[in-house]
Amino acid sequence: MPRPIITLTTDFGLKDPYVAEMKGVILSISPNATIVDITHDVKKFDVRMGAFALASAVPYFPRGTVHVAVVDPSVGAERHPLLIQTKGGFLIGPDNGVLALGATNQGIEHVFRITNQKLMLPKPSNTFHGRDVFAPAAAHLANGISAEEFGLEIHRIKKPQFARIIKRGSMFIGEALYIDSFGNIITNFTLKELESLNIGTEAKAKIKRNKLKLRICRAYAEERNAKPLAIIGSHGFLEISVNQGSAAGYFKMKEGNSITIYHA
Amino acid sequence: MPRPIITLTTDFGLKDPYVAEMKGVILSISPNATIVDITHDVKKFDVRMGAFALASAVPYFPRGTVHVAVVDPSVGAERHPLLIQTKGGFLIGPDNGVLALGATNQGIEHVFRITNQKLMLPKPSNTFHGRDVFAPAAAHLANGISAEEFGLEIHRIKKPQFARIIKRGSMFIGEALYIDSFGNIITNFTLKELESLNIGTEAKAKIKRNKLKLRICRAYAEERNAKPLAIIGSHGFLEISVNQGSAAGYFKMKEGNSITIYHA
Amino acid sequence: MPRPIITLTTDFGLKDPYVAEMKGVILSISPNATIVDITHDVKKFDVRMGAFALASAVPYFPRGTVHVAVVDPSVGAERHPLLIQTKGGFLIGPDNGVLALGATNQGIEHVFRITNQKLMLPKPSNTFHGRDVFAPAAAHLANGISAEEFGLEIHRIKKPQFARIIKRGSMFIGEALYIDSFGNIITNFTLKELESLNIGTEAKAKIKRNKLKLRICRAYAEERNAKPLAIIGSHGFLEISVNQGSAAGYFKMKEGNSITIYHA
Repeated sequence: MPRPIITLTTDFGLKDPYVAEMKGVILSISPNATIVDITHDVKKFDVRMGAFALASAVPYFPRGTVHVAVVDPSVGAERHPLLIQTKGGFLIGPDNGVLALGATNQGIEHVFRITNQKLMLPKPSNTFHGRDVFAPAAAHLANGISAEEFGLEIHRIKKPQFARIIKRGSMFIGEALYIDSFGNIITNFTLKELESLNIGTEAKAKIKRNKLKLRICRAYAEERNAKPLAIIGSHGFLEISVNQGSAAGYFKMKEGNSITIYHA
Repeated sequence: MPRPIITLTTDFGLKDPYVAEMKGVILSISPNATIVDITHDVKKFDVRMGAFALASAVPYFPRGTVHVAVVDPSVGAERHPLLIQTKGGFLIGPDNGVLALGATNQGIEHVFRITNQKLMLPKPSNTFHGRDVFAPAAAHLANGISAEEFGLEIHRIKKPQFARIIKRGSMFIGEALYIDSFGNIITNFTLKELESLNIGTEAKAKIKRNKLKLRICRAYAEERNAKPLAIIGSHGFLEISVNQGSAAGYFKMKEGNSITIYHA
Repeated sequence: MPRPIITLTTDFGLKDPYVAEMKGVILSISPNATIVDITHDVKKFDVRMGAFALASAVPYFPRGTVHVAVVDPSVGAERHPLLIQTKGGFLIGPDNGVLALGATNQGIEHVFRITNQKLMLPKPSNTFHGRDVFAPAAAHLANGISAEEFGLEIHRIKKPQFARIIKRGSMFIGEALYIDSFGNIITNFTLKELESLNIGTEAKAKIKRNKLKLRICRAYAEERNAKPLAIIGSHGFLEISVNQGSAAGYFKMKEGNSITIYHA
C-alpha cells in the first residue's frame, strides 16, 4: 500500500519550530505519512498568496493527497476549520478562502466543518490550530478515517478575496496578483475573462505604459523569442512571462499594479 | 513496523549542502528513516536559540524519535559528543547545553559519551561532527543499536547558559530570550518563578515602560481580546503574546530586553 | 526493499510552489520515493554554484540514489536533457555542466539523452523541464526503468565553466569559487595543481595581501589552532578554512577574488 501523502502550506517561515511541531503531530498519528512542504514563506496572513501557492501545486499531487493550508489571521475567532473532499483528494484549513481556489479547481464533492474533538490534539489551543486541529485532522484522514467523521457537512465556503476585475467597455482591468522569484507575473484574469472578450490565441494588453500583443500560449514552447507571452497557469490564472527572462523586470511591474486586456 | 524518525536542528542554513550531506549519511545507514527538519536557521553558534527550538518541538514527536542538534562552536575542541536517552526518545549532539533543555523536559534516563568509532563515519573530520559523528550515531540508533554501545555512561551534562534571573524583593527580573517570526516573546521565566511568587492566574509585569496585568492562560483561548496574555509554552518558558498580533511590536521589545514580573 | 532516494538541487528558492510541484510529480510516479533537498538556494542561473552543491553532497548518498539538478538558464533552447549513469547512482538534469562535476567524481559509466516522451509528463512545457521532464525521469528511474530506455547514448557532456587557473612560473593563480555560510573558502584548485607543484603537506599561498603557509590537511583535526588550513573537500576542490572561525572574514575574501599557490 502506498504511503499517504500530506502537504503543508503556511506563513510560519522555517526559522521557528512551528512547522516541525505540525510534522511531529502528524507522524505521531500517521507514522508512515510522507510530508511535503509546498511553501512556508507565504507572506504573513496573506490568504491570497497562500491560496495561489496551494492551487498551483495541488494538480501535481497524486489522487488522495491531503493538503493542509494554514494562513490564518483569524485563528480562534469566528472562521471555521474546514475539511474539503474533492475529486482529487482533501484540503484542510481555515474557512477564509485559502482552500477555495485549489479545491474548486479539483472539483468539490463535500465540505465538512471540523468539530470532532476526538480527532484533534487534547485541549487544542486557540492560536495554533495548525498544530492542534489541522495537523491531527490530516493525519487521521491519511489513516483512513472518513471525512464525515470530522463534523457536519456544510454547503458554502468562503472564496478568497482576489482583486476585483473591472470591465470598461470591451476592456478588462485587473492586476498583478503574485510575482514569482523568476519574475513571472501571475494576474487575476482567468479563462472566463478571455472567453468573454472572445480572445483566442492573442490578446492586446496594456501593462504600465506598454501596449503590446500577448500571445496566449498553451505551452511556453510556442514562443521561442525573448518577448512576453501569456499562458493559463496551473492555478487557473493568466500568467505573463518572458522566455528566459523576468517579465516583472521587463515591465517594472510590482504586485498590485494594474493590467488591462482587450481584444487583439 | 513504523519507520524510525530522526529530527535535525542546526545552524547550517539551507543554502550550503551540509544538511543534505547529513541526510545522505543517515539514509546510507538507515534507508527507511523519516528525517524531519526542526530548523536550520538557528543563529550561527547560538546554543541557546538551538536549545529553544529543539525543546519546543521535541514534545510533539512520537516516542522513540531520535533528535540530532548541531550548534557547535567548539567542534573538535574539548566538548564531548553526547547521546541522551530520555523517557520519550533520544537526543544526540555536543555537550554544550543545546540538548539539555529538551532532554530535561522529557525526563533524562541515561547519558552516554559517543566514543565508539565503529558507529561514526570512517576518519571523522574535526570540524563536521554533524555529518561524521552525530548523523551516523542517529542512524545506528534508529536501526536498533542500543544506547550503551556508543560509549561510557556519564552523569553530568552541561546546562545551556540562559540569562540569569535576578530576584529583587518580591520581583523577578528576567529577559526576552527569543522573539518568534509572529512577534511572540519567549521569556526566561519558568513555572518555578511563578510558583515562587505565588502567582496563579495573573501576574503583574513591567515590560519596557508599560506596567500591566498579564493573565496566565492555559490556552490562548482564555483571552479573546487583542491584549497581551501569557502562557507557559511547550519549551517550559513563559511566553507573552498578543492574540492575532505581535507582542514584540506592541512593546517594541527585542531579544535581550528585560522583563520584570511580580505578584498581582 | 529499501525505498528509492531522489535528491533535488535547484535555483527555484522555497517561496514559490515549484519545488513542491516537482515533488508532487515524483510521488505520483514513485509513491515510495524518499526525496531529499540538497539546496534550492543556488543563485539563479548559476550553473557553477549548482555544480558545487551537487558534487559536495553526492558522495554521502547511498549507491543507486538518483540526483536531479535543475539550474537551467537555457531551458527549452539547444541544451539537451541528460541522464548520467555512474558507478554510484544516477544524475539527471540539463547538459550545461551542472551535473558534470558530481558525475565525474563518481565515475561516469553511460550518458543518455532524455528523449522518450513516454517517460515525461504529457505535453511538457518548454520552461519547466524540472517538473515536466527531469522529475518524471527521476521517478521512473527510481521505479526501476533502465537508463537506456530514456534515449540514445551519447559520449560527450558539457563541463561546467569554472574560472581558469593560470600558471605563472612555479605558481598557480586561481580564485575563490564559493564561500559557504560559515566563511569557508572553496577555491578552484584541485589535487592536480597541488601534485603538479609537488606540494605535499604544505603550500605557500598569497591570499589578498597575506603571504602564508597553508597546511594541507587530510582532516581538519590536524590543525588545532585558529589559523588557516587547507583541505581537499568532497567536491574535489581545495578549501581554505579557519578552525572555529571564518576564513573569508579572516582574509576579507569574496567569491571571485584571486588566490595564488606555490611550493612551500
